[in-house]
Amino acid sequence: MQKELSYEDIQIGDTANFSKTISEFDIYQFAGLTGDFNPMHINEEFASKTFFEDRIAHGLLTGSFISTVLGMKLPGPNSIYLSQSFTFTAPVKIGDTINATVKVIDKQDDKKFIRLKTEVWNQLNEKVVDGEALVMKKSLERK
Amino acid sequence: MQKELSYEDIQIGDTANFSKTISEFDIYQFAGLTGDFNPMHINEEFASKTFFEDRIAHGLLTGSFISTVLGMKLPGPNSIYLSQSFTFTAPVKIGDTINATVKVIDKQDDKKFIRLKTEVWNQLNEKVVDGEALVMKKSLERK
Amino acid sequence: MQKELSYEDIQIGDTANFSKTISEFDIYQFAGLTGDFNPMHINEEFASKTFFEDRIAHGLLTGSFISTVLGMKLPGPNSIYLSQSFTFTAPVKIGDTINATVKVIDKQDDKKFIRLKTEVWNQLNEKVVDGEALVMKKSLERK
Amino acid sequence: MQKELSYEDIQIGDTANFSKTISEFDIYQFAGLTGDFNPMHINEEFASKTFFEDRIAHGLLTGSFISTVLGMKLPGPNSIYLSQSFTFTAPVKIGDTINATVKVIDKQDDKKFIRLKTEVWNQLNEKVVDGEALVMKKSLERK
Repeated sequence: MQKELSYEDIQIGDTANFSKTISEFDIYQFAGLTGDFNPMHINEEFASKTFFEDRIAHGLLTGSFISTVLGMKLPGPNSIYLSQSFTFTAPVKIGDTINATVKVIDKQDDKKFIRLKTEVWNQLNEKVVDGEALVMKKSLERK
Repeated sequence: MQKELSYEDIQIGDTANFSKTISEFDIYQFAGLTGDFNPMHINEEFASKTFFEDRIAHGLLTGSFISTVLGMKLPGPNSIYLSQSFTFTAPVKIGDTINATVKVIDKQDDKKFIRLKTEVWNQLNEKVVDGEALVMKKSLERK
Repeated sequence: MQKELSYEDIQIGDTANFSKTISEFDIYQFAGLTGDFNPMHINEEFASKTFFEDRIAHGLLTGSFISTVLGMKLPGPNSIYLSQSFTFTAPVKIGDTINATVKVIDKQDDKKFIRLKTEVWNQLNEKVVDGEALVMKKSLERK
Repeated sequence: MQKELSYEDIQIGDTANFSKTISEFDIYQFAGLTGDFNPMHINEEFASKTFFEDRIAHGLLTGSFISTVLGMKLPGPNSIYLSQSFTFTAPVKIGDTINATVKVIDKQDDKKFIRLKTEVWNQLNEKVVDGEALVMKKSLERK
């Protein structure tokens, strides 16, 4: 059985990732969840006339897969998400396969803070999202 | 119908917002979209034993309503989302009504960049997400 | 309107079926519901390098259409699903049209048990799922 | 980074699990996906008059979390789901937290087959689903 990671188990340089092919369903569901129906995301007629040429995924949808890696793998359960920065560096289109990656770049032992480089790449090895996350890794159990 | 804003129409100090009551459906759908099934979000037995006492929304779900305001209202269509920072300052639970707000704090005319303060509040006027966004406001039409 | 079947109405040899074209939406929604984001189901880059050559439906998604036939048609409402076995005999891909079929193969009158052969076929008449179900057919009404 | 398990890594006695609180959303989404709108699942008026007293989850929805554990954790990616048996031993209602568990009970080295006991429990430690799975654990890569 997979052991849950403790703060002490996690080392600078540790990495984890999650990959998914972005479908029209993903973009439409994210639009429906958030209400962000900007035509670049859900209007093919509009999008086809732009220099993007096609509908693109919401930047925060692509960025959200960073949350998946942080919440599920590194540091995983029993952690608190403190902050996240994103720079959106390239568009993601329907059918692109994105790979969200995190890498531990710093630890602050007194506060159990873990700082991670967070990046999302596409199948052509273009970086589509850049950023950093700060997470506190500790038991959430009520005493 | 709302007239679409141009870069010139938008002034420092302009504000916009979007509000939604967060349902279990929203949290489960965001988990299903992203794959972030961290037990704090979808396991009531686990969550009830933590100091949060209940399942909480994914921070990036709450943050995503900022994308809604930016993409739909200010600056609205025909803009490019360049970057976003989030600090998660308080938990959001099922039934909370969040209000995502943006306020223009700077403009850079040569690049048509607009910088906005982005905050999400709950129904008790507690700030749950803090941050800033940078957006370029220009026509996306292909020449 | 279809009359609801009683235990006595149902005869050995009776059949029923349900057919659906499996979409990317179905697979992504099943992943989102269950948390099964295995790359064979949601990562086209990974799947294209396997001998399946493409993303495939979760076996239990395909199998679940048996539940549809049992619960909706034969034996239909007022029955209790006791057990189900599945053998997954061929992959199902996006765009395949599956046909879930059930056939009554035995009845046990004292317990009102009905045993059914349960199979799912694709549009090429390949069997993709094989198995058996055991259902009790009786009124669920509280006395 | 989490290493992917090989056939040789996996030992008899190894276990893994996945837990989720079952929401009305889950049941409705499963109904919508499969077409199994049996009134026990989606009709509160009907269900309240039965000896179950309330809407219950589809047995195969509950069983599907076994697929999650097999596909994501043990044996994880690069495996082929060969067969699954389920016995439905108790109802699952909205708000129940289920815990799907798998345990390796046998290995067949020549075929790289792994046999697992598969059980789902509720928050009261009642077994709601019993069964067994057979999985082949090998690289899916096309030569």
